[in-house]
Amino acid sequence: MTSDATPTPSPAAPATHRTRVVVVGAGPAGLTVANILRAASVDCVVLETESRAFIEQRPRAGFLEEWAVHALERRGLADGLLERAQVHHEFEFRFAGERHRFPYGELAGRRHFVYPQPLLVTDLVRRYADDTGGDIRFGVRDVELHGIDTERPSVSYTDPDTGRRERIDCDTVAGCDGARGVCRESLPQGHSTIARHDYGIGWLALLAEAPPSSDCVVFGAHPRGFAAHMARSPQVTRYYLECPPGDDPGNWPHERVWSELRLRLAADGAMPLTEGRLIEKRVLDMHNYVVEPMSYGRLHLAGDAAHLAAPIAAKGMNLALHDALLLGDALVAHCARGDSGGLRDYSAASLRRVWQYQEFSQWLSEVMHGASSGDPFRAGVATARLRRVFGSPAAAAAFAELYIGKDIDP
Amino acid sequence: MTSDATPTPSPAAPATHRTRVVVVGAGPAGLTVANILRAASVDCVVLETESRAFIEQRPRAGFLEEWAVHALERRGLADGLLERAQVHHEFEFRFAGERHRFPYGELAGRRHFVYPQPLLVTDLVRRYADDTGGDIRFGVRDVELHGIDTERPSVSYTDPDTGRRERIDCDTVAGCDGARGVCRESLPQGHSTIARHDYGIGWLALLAEAPPSSDCVVFGAHPRGFAAHMARSPQVTRYYLECPPGDDPGNWPHERVWSELRLRLAADGAMPLTEGRLIEKRVLDMHNYVVEPMSYGRLHLAGDAAHLAAPIAAKGMNLALHDALLLGDALVAHCARGDSGGLRDYSAASLRRVWQYQEFSQWLSEVMHGASSGDPFRAGVATARLRRVFGSPAAAAAFAELYIGKDIDP
Repeated sequence: MTSDATPTPSPAAPATHRTRVVVVGAGPAGLTVANILRAASVDCVVLETESRAFIEQRPRAGFLEEWAVHALERRGLADGLLERAQVHHEFEFRFAGERHRFPYGELAGRRHFVYPQPLLVTDLVRRYADDTGGDIRFGVRDVELHGIDTERPSVSYTDPDTGRRERIDCDTVAGCDGARGVCRESLPQGHSTIARHDYGIGWLALLAEAPPSSDCVVFGAHPRGFAAHMARSPQVTRYYLECPPGDDPGNWPHERVWSELRLRLAADGAMPLTEGRLIEKRVLDMHNYVVEPMSYGRLHLAGDAAHLAAPIAAKGMNLALHDALLLGDALVAHCARGDSGGLRDYSAASLRRVWQYQEFSQWLSEVMHGASSGDPFRAGVATARLRRVFGSPAAAAAFAELYIGKDIDP
Repeated sequence: MTSDATPTPSPAAPATHRTRVVVVGAGPAGLTVANILRAASVDCVVLETESRAFIEQRPRAGFLEEWAVHALERRGLADGLLERAQVHHEFEFRFAGERHRFPYGELAGRRHFVYPQPLLVTDLVRRYADDTGGDIRFGVRDVELHGIDTERPSVSYTDPDTGRRERIDCDTVAGCDGARGVCRESLPQGHSTIARHDYGIGWLALLAEAPPSSDCVVFGAHPRGFAAHMARSPQVTRYYLECPPGDDPGNWPHERVWSELRLRLAADGAMPLTEGRLIEKRVLDMHNYVVEPMSYGRLHLAGDAAHLAAPIAAKGMNLALHDALLLGDALVAHCARGDSGGLRDYSAASLRRVWQYQEFSQWLSEVMHGASSGDPFRAGVATARLRRVFGSPAAAAAFAELYIGKDIDP
């Protein structure tokens, strides 16, 4: 039953095809849930359609908010992160040719830990599968959920080696299989509302073989479009350029990219950008959605399966971890102590932070994209927001809390 | 030349048809400018298309922010206001069947003075025309501006008694003639940008012969639409009901109005609404605009002539007074001391507050109207904003400052 793709076949895999919790998806959400269950000796199986090598390298977000880091640390899941993450506590916003530093770390007393998702996933897989012998099956195909509205749900899949259908009976399914997974589609029509917001813009995501050109994250709001700069390592820098949604990265040759970055990030006294070869060019279409409620019967969604936040405010991975911490604890309470209160309240508790972050993403998107919207009212509103955040201590304090995700759950 | 409609013909009216400043429009903006000029002995003439009786009764907004009250007080223009205005320092927001008090007076250290516009206009006319003998001409027709891009602008109009065209030469024109006046139309095409925002909703504005049903302003966000309650006097209460833009007030008979108000303002422990005869029913279409820049040659716009804020946040009269205070002082500096710096910077100085209030109106509009938008994403964002304002001290402080207009000019 354990696929060859699993480097450490799990001794705990039940021959009976029965476990307490099936976790679908081995991203940050699924692996955090699985580690919390494993630490509490609750039987579980993780199913992942990709290979271990793939998920340990898939490029994704990297900004972890301090509350999430501490929550992982308390569960013994943050050793690598604490050892290797860069700590960020301010950003720079450039508009109208001016540079404005925003010291959110000082204002909110919280910082960002920059630790790319593949590194976190690598740590979490090692801990679950290698250190504690957790059952994880890579490369599974055609995952299907059954009977989630009954007391005996199950999950079936095709084993990549034998080609046979396998089926695991369980008490609960944790749906952590991302934006394009099967779990969300297993919700019956009409049960949940899916709230959607399409920003109508794209971001060209770039990785440049070039040292950073600032000591912090730089955002630039410009009539030609938004741009951003984020240090990745001493040799590699991430840049973003606003572009039409669905734009072809082929429309962005080396010269055009650097010329636009120079224009959009220009400001008095700014360090000139250091150019370099572009080793990644992808277009991300900016849109958000929220599934409400996130639970149905014995299925509980977590992370991108339940809600997507455009990368505008770097909230996606933080929300995934927030879900996983809530859901992991709720599952332990249910499975180990028969207390189902946490599972009952899970969706509402998750959605409070989800909606705060969605609101913030939308608010910040207007700040970033208003100037280039072609609508003078939106441009005026964007400038007003910037002037307020940089001019009013009260507004700065409120902004800093949302930016770093502090005190979100009243 | 002075029309019969002027109760106190001005002895200062120049037989030569010449003055320093022509003020077009006798609303709060124009009358404040005129009083500031008069107090500094700068010659001016006020032209108003309506009668004195009309402008002293025209129903309009009534919420004055404390900074504006103090600014009027310093110029000796707030005696009636300080004697008779009600002071407000909190409001109640009802949503999801809950009541939430917001003590903005305590949070921001500033209050609202509720003093209906016709009372303020009455005070300002009396001061200008009766107490200090200012030149004001009521009932003028077909006002036209000439040569505003020259050093010798003039304003012509038809005298309502003689039917003759009259013409006043001047140095400067203060365009305070509101949203439908001629001054804004005198800007040449292409000089200013007009930024517009249409909310796509209407408000049914109601006056009820009924005592207030709460001791403060009440806002209600409800899936059926926004509603509001504002005490007017012990016998009269203002209510608002969100409705389709352009709706016919005839669609809102007594029973429907009260039934909707009861539904939309329902909340645990709320006082039942006291019904009464509806003595006013008007539909206001919610839209905003901003003219930028507000000056051209010798013409300077002020108040609704330059920018309109939907009544969502009761900002319109406050912005008109902000303009008038800036413009009055700048005109005095120019005419009395030859210092034209204030006039040069007037538009930019005004627009800083204008855009802060436009941003706030748009933000607050989503809070009020998101729940009834039919879009679950907008509804979720609206709820997130409310929960944040009522749950985060930092967010509450920032909101309170904008709500009462404190510390807007960084």
